Amino acid sequence: MKDCLFCKFIKKEIDVTPVYEDKKTFVILDISPASPKGGHMLVMPKNHYELVSDMSDEDSTAVMLTIKKMSRALLKFGEGMNVLQNNKKAAGQYISHVHFHLIPRFENDGITIEKWTANKYGSEEEMHKIKEKIRKLLKD
Amino acid sequence: MKDCLFCKFIKKEIDVTPVYEDKKTFVILDISPASPKGGHMLVMPKNHYELVSDMSDEDSTAVMLTIKKMSRALLKFGEGMNVLQNNKKAAGQYISHVHFHLIPRFENDGITIEKWTANKYGSEEEMHKIKEKIRKLLKD
Repeated sequence: MKDCLFCKFIKKEIDVTPVYEDKKTFVILDISPASPKGGHMLVMPKNHYELVSDMSDEDSTAVMLTIKKMSRALLKFGEGMNVLQNNKKAAGQYISHVHFHLIPRFENDGITIEKWTANKYGSEEEMHKIKEKIRKLLKD
Repeated sequence: MKDCLFCKFIKKEIDVTPVYEDKKTFVILDISPASPKGGHMLVMPKNHYELVSDMSDEDSTAVMLTIKKMSRALLKFGEGMNVLQNNKKAAGQYISHVHFHLIPRFENDGITIEKWTANKYGSEEEMHKIKEKIRKLLKD
């Protein structure tokens, strides 16, 4: 979709290195992770859809398999993990390209899902390290 | 699984009328809906798994197709909808049978996902009406 930020990432019109991608799905780190420890990922279909209910069967099942795949890594990264997907503004959807937040959790981390404080990575290097850690965990 | 509450629902050892079920998936209303207007559903696989990453490919894709199906109805019920799935205690998982919360949302409803106030239905009748409304919307 022409004015969609995520489509621009997927089509490499804006340079973003994905944490993971395959034929049908694309995974990036959220630039404002819920946890200051990072690792918060966004899993999305490459094709543009607004809502979870809009996705084709083929794309939605591909997304689920990628969620599973990324979760296996993220559950090694954190002590728990939330999967959160928001549909429409009333539910907190700000980018109209369906995406699933995978949020690593730690005991007593104070996160209250959706109303989290938007943290930033300390540096690009730190962000890169977290990406690498996840890539490594994917291979374990 | 022997001591799993959701397995008892699925196997009809405890009498719960599902909002929807098919060969592989089972959907019930949450008895403590996030929204006082109700409609909050739990979508789960019939087979017992603890975490999203534990599910077989077949069961997880069946769950995704049921989420899509239920979402189409729920997005007519509310002005938006969250999909939330919690893994392990650190992320707020209290029942060890993987389940996806489908939470209808309304503009300025004050819900802060995961830290919501546990509301109750006014009566069984009210709960039944909401179930019927959703069943009807599924057919629309």
